[in-house]
Amino acid sequence: MPEYQTLLVEQHASVAHVQINRPEKINAMNALFWEEIIAAFDWIDQTDSVRVVVVSGAGKHFSAGIDLMMLAGASHKMTTDIGRNAEIIRRNVLRLQASFNAVDQCRKPVIAAIHGYCIGGAIDLISACDMRYSTADAHFSIKEIDMGMAADVGTLQRLPHLIGDGMMRELAYTGRAFDGNEAAAMGLVNSIQPDHEKLMSSVMAIANEIASKSPLAIRGTKEMIRYSRDHSVEDGLNYIATWNAAMLQSEDMKLAMAAHMAKKTAEFAD
Amino acid sequence: MPEYQTLLVEQHASVAHVQINRPEKINAMNALFWEEIIAAFDWIDQTDSVRVVVVSGAGKHFSAGIDLMMLAGASHKMTTDIGRNAEIIRRNVLRLQASFNAVDQCRKPVIAAIHGYCIGGAIDLISACDMRYSTADAHFSIKEIDMGMAADVGTLQRLPHLIGDGMMRELAYTGRAFDGNEAAAMGLVNSIQPDHEKLMSSVMAIANEIASKSPLAIRGTKEMIRYSRDHSVEDGLNYIATWNAAMLQSEDMKLAMAAHMAKKTAEFAD
Amino acid sequence: MPEYQTLLVEQHASVAHVQINRPEKINAMNALFWEEIIAAFDWIDQTDSVRVVVVSGAGKHFSAGIDLMMLAGASHKMTTDIGRNAEIIRRNVLRLQASFNAVDQCRKPVIAAIHGYCIGGAIDLISACDMRYSTADAHFSIKEIDMGMAADVGTLQRLPHLIGDGMMRELAYTGRAFDGNEAAAMGLVNSIQPDHEKLMSSVMAIANEIASKSPLAIRGTKEMIRYSRDHSVEDGLNYIATWNAAMLQSEDMKLAMAAHMAKKTAEFAD
Amino acid sequence: MPEYQTLLVEQHASVAHVQINRPEKINAMNALFWEEIIAAFDWIDQTDSVRVVVVSGAGKHFSAGIDLMMLAGASHKMTTDIGRNAEIIRRNVLRLQASFNAVDQCRKPVIAAIHGYCIGGAIDLISACDMRYSTADAHFSIKEIDMGMAADVGTLQRLPHLIGDGMMRELAYTGRAFDGNEAAAMGLVNSIQPDHEKLMSSVMAIANEIASKSPLAIRGTKEMIRYSRDHSVEDGLNYIATWNAAMLQSEDMKLAMAAHMAKKTAEFAD
Amino acid sequence: MPEYQTLLVEQHASVAHVQINRPEKINAMNALFWEEIIAAFDWIDQTDSVRVVVVSGAGKHFSAGIDLMMLAGASHKMTTDIGRNAEIIRRNVLRLQASFNAVDQCRKPVIAAIHGYCIGGAIDLISACDMRYSTADAHFSIKEIDMGMAADVGTLQRLPHLIGDGMMRELAYTGRAFDGNEAAAMGLVNSIQPDHEKLMSSVMAIANEIASKSPLAIRGTKEMIRYSRDHSVEDGLNYIATWNAAMLQSEDMKLAMAAHMAKKTAEFAD
Amino acid sequence: MPEYQTLLVEQHASVAHVQINRPEKINAMNALFWEEIIAAFDWIDQTDSVRVVVVSGAGKHFSAGIDLMMLAGASHKMTTDIGRNAEIIRRNVLRLQASFNAVDQCRKPVIAAIHGYCIGGAIDLISACDMRYSTADAHFSIKEIDMGMAADVGTLQRLPHLIGDGMMRELAYTGRAFDGNEAAAMGLVNSIQPDHEKLMSSVMAIANEIASKSPLAIRGTKEMIRYSRDHSVEDGLNYIATWNAAMLQSEDMKLAMAAHMAKKTAEFAD
Repeated sequence: MPEYQTLLVEQHASVAHVQINRPEKINAMNALFWEEIIAAFDWIDQTDSVRVVVVSGAGKHFSAGIDLMMLAGASHKMTTDIGRNAEIIRRNVLRLQASFNAVDQCRKPVIAAIHGYCIGGAIDLISACDMRYSTADAHFSIKEIDMGMAADVGTLQRLPHLIGDGMMRELAYTGRAFDGNEAAAMGLVNSIQPDHEKLMSSVMAIANEIASKSPLAIRGTKEMIRYSRDHSVEDGLNYIATWNAAMLQSEDMKLAMAAHMAKKTAEFAD
Repeated sequence: MPEYQTLLVEQHASVAHVQINRPEKINAMNALFWEEIIAAFDWIDQTDSVRVVVVSGAGKHFSAGIDLMMLAGASHKMTTDIGRNAEIIRRNVLRLQASFNAVDQCRKPVIAAIHGYCIGGAIDLISACDMRYSTADAHFSIKEIDMGMAADVGTLQRLPHLIGDGMMRELAYTGRAFDGNEAAAMGLVNSIQPDHEKLMSSVMAIANEIASKSPLAIRGTKEMIRYSRDHSVEDGLNYIATWNAAMLQSEDMKLAMAAHMAKKTAEFAD
Repeated sequence: MPEYQTLLVEQHASVAHVQINRPEKINAMNALFWEEIIAAFDWIDQTDSVRVVVVSGAGKHFSAGIDLMMLAGASHKMTTDIGRNAEIIRRNVLRLQASFNAVDQCRKPVIAAIHGYCIGGAIDLISACDMRYSTADAHFSIKEIDMGMAADVGTLQRLPHLIGDGMMRELAYTGRAFDGNEAAAMGLVNSIQPDHEKLMSSVMAIANEIASKSPLAIRGTKEMIRYSRDHSVEDGLNYIATWNAAMLQSEDMKLAMAAHMAKKTAEFAD
Repeated sequence: MPEYQTLLVEQHASVAHVQINRPEKINAMNALFWEEIIAAFDWIDQTDSVRVVVVSGAGKHFSAGIDLMMLAGASHKMTTDIGRNAEIIRRNVLRLQASFNAVDQCRKPVIAAIHGYCIGGAIDLISACDMRYSTADAHFSIKEIDMGMAADVGTLQRLPHLIGDGMMRELAYTGRAFDGNEAAAMGLVNSIQPDHEKLMSSVMAIANEIASKSPLAIRGTKEMIRYSRDHSVEDGLNYIATWNAAMLQSEDMKLAMAAHMAKKTAEFAD
Repeated sequence: MPEYQTLLVEQHASVAHVQINRPEKINAMNALFWEEIIAAFDWIDQTDSVRVVVVSGAGKHFSAGIDLMMLAGASHKMTTDIGRNAEIIRRNVLRLQASFNAVDQCRKPVIAAIHGYCIGGAIDLISACDMRYSTADAHFSIKEIDMGMAADVGTLQRLPHLIGDGMMRELAYTGRAFDGNEAAAMGLVNSIQPDHEKLMSSVMAIANEIASKSPLAIRGTKEMIRYSRDHSVEDGLNYIATWNAAMLQSEDMKLAMAAHMAKKTAEFAD
Repeated sequence: MPEYQTLLVEQHASVAHVQINRPEKINAMNALFWEEIIAAFDWIDQTDSVRVVVVSGAGKHFSAGIDLMMLAGASHKMTTDIGRNAEIIRRNVLRLQASFNAVDQCRKPVIAAIHGYCIGGAIDLISACDMRYSTADAHFSIKEIDMGMAADVGTLQRLPHLIGDGMMRELAYTGRAFDGNEAAAMGLVNSIQPDHEKLMSSVMAIANEIASKSPLAIRGTKEMIRYSRDHSVEDGLNYIATWNAAMLQSEDMKLAMAAHMAKKTAEFAD
């Protein structure tokens, strides 16, 4: 099990639990975090025994978003030429985006369990997860507008696929806070739980349920839903037909069928 | 009126009612069904007097999805070469998809009325319809995951346009059941009725309402909404301008205007 | 402040208030309206001191949609050749679309405040706005179907991004009326207010809240959300990185940071 | 071997030769032709022993394009309503397009051998083939413009991928004739031969060369080039990776390798 | 006939001849030019009697491209904030692009006749035309790279559709000069003439040839080729089917048919 | 200067020269090569003093393509499940593609200088470069078809943008060899030289010419041409406007202008 400074990664059966682990800083995302999240999801993607991932925050909150110290530090590396600075900034933003792309593109489902603050960059992170669940009193805010900037690590691209376009704009323009109840009503989270403990046990139950399915079928399903987000229905249909050309020759389908006939639970290889 | 073995097709005034008609098999979709659904929708598309279609299930359920006997039978036709098998499988999947594409591409609105089981392939079917209505106790499940496979006849491509991306993934990864109330809350069905009888009468009322409109305008509206699903707003605006260049020269608009002025109901040609 | 015959435009601090101003005609959109809306939004786009726009209807209603007199008049300009007429109609439709494209593409957020009738072309208009709020008893209808035509100035392209595809089709095919409560439930409006006065004060509060943010960041946020609507997540991420390459060199971010540290409110240039 | 009235289809080893067979009408494309071309290519697609297709014209010419008698006949089926006529025409055009889509989408390479006239609809046809070869004195013309119409069965969509955009427009706007030399210089045909006999023997040699390759690899290559025409480089790379996930498990690659090592010619299954 | 300061516009029969008319400045494109080109093409688009456009340069050259005085002047309008300056620059570039978009989007074919210098912005202009013809000794160069900037008014977007991607990059990276012979070999111009006089007479002959065709069919053909440039083959086929649904009901097709039968020349309405 | 086993990387002034360095194996691409090419282009992208890259082959040939030993070795890592093997193969292909994506996406122009064999994977490599130049007797072949497979590391996606679609298919289906003369005629290489020495001196001259330009402008130009390959003209125009919003504030443009006025050569920062 790899170790990180800003993340605590544990594996329970087939579920990897990734905790953002800077509770004394409300889990603010510092420079090291953005690197470690790539390393952790690379490890997850490579590790066959991990079938599902849960992301949560250590301590009292999910995360307060990007560490403002980090933004301040970024200005040191600038040159005296506006054009060259633009190039440096552009590449830095692309590098930060790559961290959450690693979550989005992870072949295995990633579930966010949110309690306490979930602010700014934390919204970008949960938007890149497959599903989101929270406590009723979780505190969400698309805070970038109050930093005088347009959010640039994924919220404005991925969140419109989760909530209505109209509410999307209200939240992004005003940066106003909303809680778990409102998040559930708008479709940001699938359901809410009364407290952190119940949240974690319910999320772990869902994770374990998913982990019991054919991993091959789960990974194919995730690939297809991700692909559908950005392609036409027709392109998506062609893609699944091509994908399943190989996958329907797998043992998993036969195992599932046999278990179904025998009214047993199928056991799938990783 | 054409006759089918797996479907019962009736026409009431301008509404065609297509019932999946294998109640003793919970309306499971066998090989013949996949062919007859194409034939039926081809007939509907060609028959001018049909303006709206209602799809429902005969007996106690909508449909249990693909007939497992059919899947089992598919393995007989394989060769000894993995590559050539892949090609056979890919073409088979494309052929099944074509059956529900016929529903999606039918020029006339298709309304699904769902009661009882609506499982696996049945979700693929209703996703290809224009609108969906159900009883409160209808029983839905994206069951493919429990067959050890990623759904490949349309659910993963069309359903994300109907429900939120987050709930989409939960349902596709877990295969868990949900009822009409939850289906309405997530936007899968437009509304629910307490029982089958009320469902059918309310759906027929909507169908007849739509059938009273200009068929030309209804077909244009369907084409535009389908097109918008897969194209940019700009491409969509250009398309309707080109479409209406001919259609606004139709008599229907004049008839509608005259009826509006005279406070009467317009009667449109098929 | 420019003056118009069909619009009343006022500026309060940084908020422009555009009222459709033909109350004696239920604010029906006549030929002049379609020109003036372009002129008004051009002025708004060019006027740096305007940061947010509110659109509402003078009198008892938002708008009854396109003026039927105008449609009737259009037939006078036709030639005797069906092909040439098609070209004339197509260009007319593109011209009407341009009026609401000016709203959609306005660099500054546009908020619709809706009370009373909001019918036909009025739905096209509010679909092109950033956010929508209404009274509980507002009366909405996609009325074009009852004119014997497919809606062609934006509803069928933009509305599916706001409400579910299934409900979209029901409303477009039947033209049935629905009120503010239902509009809120389906995501067409973000929230409702009990009466017109409370609606306007609540919308103005939101507008002023947005006007207090960095205008540069607000405009960037709007551009990104609009772009995301029609592009892939990956294209959107690349676009914001390129955009912010210049914008993160602005003073606004430093001002916002400094204000944040000092727990004060930042004052931004227009 | 199926028989047709407007086509002469023969199979030599693994090559199907499809001749347009109305020499007394300069191989003009009548209503039956448009149906039979679909039937013929459906047979080709289904017949494993056919690996490559050659299309040519019986008699002194390739084809004079659409039969003008057919266009004249089309006007009989019109109604009195311009809008409904538009719908009928649109579907007729889509039906004609489907005939050449069958050529474009055929899984096996289709080679056009062109001598004499290749006019109007014949250009649409050869644009849908994989490759084109002609005699030096072949006579080409995008003739639709002289029928008072924009070409609508594929030339304007597929030809720009074969020749430069600038020459494309000159030929489509003027309808001027050009011969095999000019066709070769602009990339419409890959090479020319001095007479019909040499053309046919050289085309058959290329066809047989292709037929000697792994049919699975040839079909995959065609699918990828077709896909690349309409998709981004990135989408294309993902598609071939998914495709080859199954195909690289085929025996053909091992056979090819072994033959390569043994300096022999590999023999592949159909 | 409208009059301009930087353009000389004449109409001969159905052909408009637009000359860039600052010969003493090698037809450099100053601020007024960018406005007048929009006005001129707006007039052309609205004037039914104009069916084809020829663009050339008055005096000894086509054009030396953007007037450097204009670029120098642009810096006066900047603010002290990098972000706001970026917004100003972006909108200025979009405004310049709109000038050549007017050429690209003009419904009628635009033919460039090029002699002498064709440099920088002049390449952007001819890339937006339908076809290009030049003298053998015309002198071309993508000069923007030597101004320390990436070309931003269309060359990098439109030119790759005319010449090979490999040559495109060589010319854009090096800015090296090339003459008419090389331009013809790479497909930038369709053909060359030995001197200016022969160029103009040959271009006018082509223009008049096009002007003799059905204007409706020419405009439809241009729209289709433009659309194909940016859309898939499938989308393009659907578009022409929808377009021709109206256009095939025009008189022009009947006129063309009748003329064809009678071996006469058809006379079409504008 | 980093050192590699399969590559020899040198820097001459601002030009990096990357030689494939396994001459005893005809520069066949082994497993290490695919890793080192990523490392080398990462170093190039990060190293500001490198402005242009030249890629060539050490010894008598450019490269014989993928090392067959490597393909043979790949089969050792397979599992017993066809579905899981498909997933492994797919990811391997994606990994190989990433190696040439690094060339394509390198911010600096990459020029291929080709002599001797350029076969199979070597065609994939040069297709990912910006420009290609060769000796007259260079020997090209899309050899994958003779390995019983569809090429899967870029040829089928990138080459159609360089040569005509018709010739593309002939070469990919037959795998036939062609030399530098034919490569130049079809647009694969920009020009040819009689021998290796003249090739290298002429390519280095082009590289140094490009290296003398504003590096910022060169990188922007490359980004725009790459972007245009996969996006619409309209999207491309918007992108360059956004890009240049920052870049036109750079010093390079002022330097270039001043040098132009003074008739001197501008010296740009890296």
